[in-house]
Amino acid sequence: MTPDEARARFRGGLRVPTAGLCPGWTQANLLVVPRAYAYDLLLFAQRNPRACPVLDVGDEGAVQTSIFRGDLRTDLPGYVVYENGVPVAELSDVTAFWRADLVPFLFGCSFTFEDALVRAGVPVRHLEAGSNVPMYRTGIPCRPAGALSGPLVVSMRPVPASLVAMAVRVTSRYPAVHGAPIHVGESEELGIRDLKAPDFGDPVEIRPGEVPVFWACGVTTQAAAMASGVRFAIGHAPGHMAITDARDSDYIVP
Amino acid sequence: MTPDEARARFRGGLRVPTAGLCPGWTQANLLVVPRAYAYDLLLFAQRNPRACPVLDVGDEGAVQTSIFRGDLRTDLPGYVVYENGVPVAELSDVTAFWRADLVPFLFGCSFTFEDALVRAGVPVRHLEAGSNVPMYRTGIPCRPAGALSGPLVVSMRPVPASLVAMAVRVTSRYPAVHGAPIHVGESEELGIRDLKAPDFGDPVEIRPGEVPVFWACGVTTQAAAMASGVRFAIGHAPGHMAITDARDSDYIVP
Repeated sequence: MTPDEARARFRGGLRVPTAGLCPGWTQANLLVVPRAYAYDLLLFAQRNPRACPVLDVGDEGAVQTSIFRGDLRTDLPGYVVYENGVPVAELSDVTAFWRADLVPFLFGCSFTFEDALVRAGVPVRHLEAGSNVPMYRTGIPCRPAGALSGPLVVSMRPVPASLVAMAVRVTSRYPAVHGAPIHVGESEELGIRDLKAPDFGDPVEIRPGEVPVFWACGVTTQAAAMASGVRFAIGHAPGHMAITDARDSDYIVP
Repeated sequence: MTPDEARARFRGGLRVPTAGLCPGWTQANLLVVPRAYAYDLLLFAQRNPRACPVLDVGDEGAVQTSIFRGDLRTDLPGYVVYENGVPVAELSDVTAFWRADLVPFLFGCSFTFEDALVRAGVPVRHLEAGSNVPMYRTGIPCRPAGALSGPLVVSMRPVPASLVAMAVRVTSRYPAVHGAPIHVGESEELGIRDLKAPDFGDPVEIRPGEVPVFWACGVTTQAAAMASGVRFAIGHAPGHMAITDARDSDYIVP
């Protein structure tokens, strides 16, 4: 499936997590904020680059960006609308909520490197299970910027102990989509109480001999919008990403 | 010399280009703009990351940032003050021009990797000559952002043909301070008419067997301030950088 084809299906109402879709194409977190918050969000991203790697920022009022040639209001499989930091609607078309002063931000997503993990022989459990990746709010505060603050959010993939080093090596090559893990094992140190109860997405099985490996997650930006009581924002539904027209290979470093 | 010692000398009036000073410590381009321009500048940087790698952004009105523990108004060896895009003063203390609505930006500077070049056996001509690095406005337009647009500015170092690959390899490891060259040889293709007449800094000798190698340069941000008629801005005097408290090694990638 090409990005165009996937976006057409989402526009037609298909609502699925996007992990595993359109291999080879970059997936992105969406957060759309009023222009009054745009500087704080861009600065927040600059100060928290592991969690919030900026792939692209659209112009004020734009419904496309240079790497997303669809319509940001309809072409993701799911959205969350926030008012004063509270999710007030989860839906598959946000045209009715769009306003001329909104600025769309696209941040890197770790789904982008999952194809490379699989090709390197590292199993990805939520892909095998056909479920959404588990995501957790941690006890680690992000570096604030203006009106924005909040906790680091991480995604988790269980990795066989013998393949942890390979998972680190493969994902290190993709810094623009969160890069290397921020933590391997010992989830208590991150302030995560129960791996079976993710804050976003679905739980996955951790088998004997597997280690939970944590990557910074772009949902951090939505957690900040919530924690900061942002007046208005639109995000993708966690795991239901923007599929862009940029190739994974555009973001590989040597 | 430590960064603190160097900054104390500059505060005392020493005015010299900073290439070669405080090896092992990161040098940075300074551009200070009113808050009204801060979003456009941060977005301009995001859209032109080779030339404008953001190292740090201070809070509105701050005279320090997290990586610069001196006083940004006095602790650089030279400053340029711009009004409506026109340089109106070049001086060594800008305290009188500082205002509460100013936001200080620090961008990576290629001086940071010159120590690594020298250690790898790549001669750096302007260091040998004790002069400032030559910098040129190119004919390549940056990607605009809001009120900001302008040409890419590059720095040039002549490199013996047999060492060009080494210079590429060494500097590739420092993407936060401009990284690999953007162009090797053939300066006409960049729209540079005369290598002997740099737009900023001093000309250097290109010896037989040497190739001019071009790196993106943080003065690009000041060129944009000029080309865009920014109402007010303060920059470092080209080549007279902010010496920060961050280590070069903080910015090395594998």
